[in-house]
Amino acid sequence: MAAKPIISITTDFGEDDHFVGVMKGVILSINPDATVVDINHRVNSYDIFDGAYSLSQSYDAFPPGTIHLVVVDPGVGSERRPIIVQSKDYRFVAPDNGVLSMVYEREERVEVRHVTAEHFFRKPVSNTFHGRDIFAPVAGWLSRGMEAEKFGSVVTDYARFTSVRPTRENDALIKGVAIKVDKFGNVVTNITPGDVPQIFGQDPPPFRIRINGHEITRLCQSFAAGEPSELFAVVGSSGFIEICTNRGSAAKALKVNRGAEVELEVGGAPAGGA
Amino acid sequence: MAAKPIISITTDFGEDDHFVGVMKGVILSINPDATVVDINHRVNSYDIFDGAYSLSQSYDAFPPGTIHLVVVDPGVGSERRPIIVQSKDYRFVAPDNGVLSMVYEREERVEVRHVTAEHFFRKPVSNTFHGRDIFAPVAGWLSRGMEAEKFGSVVTDYARFTSVRPTRENDALIKGVAIKVDKFGNVVTNITPGDVPQIFGQDPPPFRIRINGHEITRLCQSFAAGEPSELFAVVGSSGFIEICTNRGSAAKALKVNRGAEVELEVGGAPAGGA
Amino acid sequence: MAAKPIISITTDFGEDDHFVGVMKGVILSINPDATVVDINHRVNSYDIFDGAYSLSQSYDAFPPGTIHLVVVDPGVGSERRPIIVQSKDYRFVAPDNGVLSMVYEREERVEVRHVTAEHFFRKPVSNTFHGRDIFAPVAGWLSRGMEAEKFGSVVTDYARFTSVRPTRENDALIKGVAIKVDKFGNVVTNITPGDVPQIFGQDPPPFRIRINGHEITRLCQSFAAGEPSELFAVVGSSGFIEICTNRGSAAKALKVNRGAEVELEVGGAPAGGA
Repeated sequence: MAAKPIISITTDFGEDDHFVGVMKGVILSINPDATVVDINHRVNSYDIFDGAYSLSQSYDAFPPGTIHLVVVDPGVGSERRPIIVQSKDYRFVAPDNGVLSMVYEREERVEVRHVTAEHFFRKPVSNTFHGRDIFAPVAGWLSRGMEAEKFGSVVTDYARFTSVRPTRENDALIKGVAIKVDKFGNVVTNITPGDVPQIFGQDPPPFRIRINGHEITRLCQSFAAGEPSELFAVVGSSGFIEICTNRGSAAKALKVNRGAEVELEVGGAPAGGA
Repeated sequence: MAAKPIISITTDFGEDDHFVGVMKGVILSINPDATVVDINHRVNSYDIFDGAYSLSQSYDAFPPGTIHLVVVDPGVGSERRPIIVQSKDYRFVAPDNGVLSMVYEREERVEVRHVTAEHFFRKPVSNTFHGRDIFAPVAGWLSRGMEAEKFGSVVTDYARFTSVRPTRENDALIKGVAIKVDKFGNVVTNITPGDVPQIFGQDPPPFRIRINGHEITRLCQSFAAGEPSELFAVVGSSGFIEICTNRGSAAKALKVNRGAEVELEVGGAPAGGA
Repeated sequence: MAAKPIISITTDFGEDDHFVGVMKGVILSINPDATVVDINHRVNSYDIFDGAYSLSQSYDAFPPGTIHLVVVDPGVGSERRPIIVQSKDYRFVAPDNGVLSMVYEREERVEVRHVTAEHFFRKPVSNTFHGRDIFAPVAGWLSRGMEAEKFGSVVTDYARFTSVRPTRENDALIKGVAIKVDKFGNVVTNITPGDVPQIFGQDPPPFRIRINGHEITRLCQSFAAGEPSELFAVVGSSGFIEICTNRGSAAKALKVNRGAEVELEVGGAPAGGA
């Protein structure tokens, strides 16, 4: 447990408004000793998968004991439940809409509780801003040491989606998708080095990646190792294979966005090729 | 009073520059124990009303004792005064240009002081960045326990504007304006449920809202209750009636922005209508 | 030394992703007592000069003892070195690519160390996100009191560029460039009042600034002193002469961006002029 309670916040609220600031005010009103840290407020609007991705890339960089507050909540005000999830090292406060799916995938054991103890909520509870009225107060009270069982009962039918994994067409061909385009225009695929271990034993690694009519055949160790307008692959800090270009946007060059299909074929270029 | 002094910041400085970071450095140089929290830095440039709105939606979510620093200051370097405002639970540091008007409207008693004690300022005082040189230092010193009277004398002729309230054309017709379009494209009007209490006793509430040639006749309890491309009204978390659409931008669908006229007519659709 | 260790962060990571949040998690995992403050994450992508500018405008507003973490790092994963720089009052953690050049220019003495002690790094170290895996951990350990010499040896061949200074064509003519366009559209030149002291003794100061076919002949004490669509000069909070317009973007009106040439001619308007 950290010296001071830490609460991270991940939302799709953007920064145009006061929404995140208000949530911090609510948290600090309950626990002025909390350290509140932003993970990302530019999750694509209403996009539960994108929120899950941001969180999965971040949560275990925080110290054990951190409370992760996640509000990507297109169903706010509907029947979807607010939940508290306890894993070995962290607690999560979020709507029960699948945004914690990647946590469920990675954590060996989780305990999920449906938050029903309305006396912890901020009154009156609006129908459109549970971040302020439900999720922030619950995180605040948790950070003050309130036990999770005080908020509601364990449930097992919580919402989760399965991450889209690449499919293996044959020994040499794997099909995936772009799951993220980051700020620099790097295209993060859902293919990991573990999906194609055979190419990593060789130098250069023999492969062709096809995406939107382009073919990428070089793996670089870093962005700077690529030529300025060259498209190349890297094993990204995300743990996935990413398509990049040096000091430029691969996504723009490829004219792709999230969801684009990606094919990785194991094997060198055909005879006569490079 | 909170365990640790909390200072919130609201500005129109955006995030492209170092401006807000510098203000935090100045505050922490004076009081390293301060907790500094961003409310919103995307107030529309030079827009005192928009700053007042952000603050009014946020300030009382913070714990009593919080110092709210507000720098929306098109008149920086001119004769407009820096002020400290003390309300029952909060202190505010801002230019005297009306940006605290909604605080004055809501708080029963305020004491407004013209800050003249230049020895608290950061030297040399620039003419173009009082956020750094005047407002941040004043907030920093206040947070260290310096009494407000040390900064200057009470004034009563402080600047304030009156919030634009909807006008009542007749018993059944009220005219208002859009006061905000939020990040999701929700259009916040200046009409509150209290302005049209008669429609809330009935199910469904009988009303028609007209805005830019569109007519909205349904009130939903939440965003998710609306059909994807349907335009509907909600009682927003802002306390105002908002025009929304489920997982989309109502402002784009309506082709409106802040300032758009809104008419609310009490009564069901005409005979033959829905 | 501040009561609590303060770490500032300046990057070109933007806010679309979780990158900055993860770095904060890493820092807090090492030192939960650290206060982490954002200076600017919108440094132009890959732009070492722009990062140096943001830092130079900010770092000495922070309390002595602050650790400034700067990650503008187009060469991530290549041979460029991670360094720790100690100045009289501050420590800096950054890639050795020149991003600290303006610190070197201003600080009388600096000690630069090449960080080689890999046991402080986060493992495995990715090739594309040293902000998370190298720079944040180093800043975290420094903030816990680890001595700089534990991280590596002093080097003297560190990378630095020389700030582009205006050139003097003759006694009356000085040529400079725009080094920044800020969020409000103010055009920051690299000409300081000290470069043209002779014009500041007179009222009005006799000068003509030429930029992209426009001529500016008035110096205002503040933005508000200018007419709404008038282009005028101010001595900016940056310490440089800036071209501005009241409540509007001078950069848009001038159709210029960073890098635009600026000529300042000392002397009043020609006979017959204003």
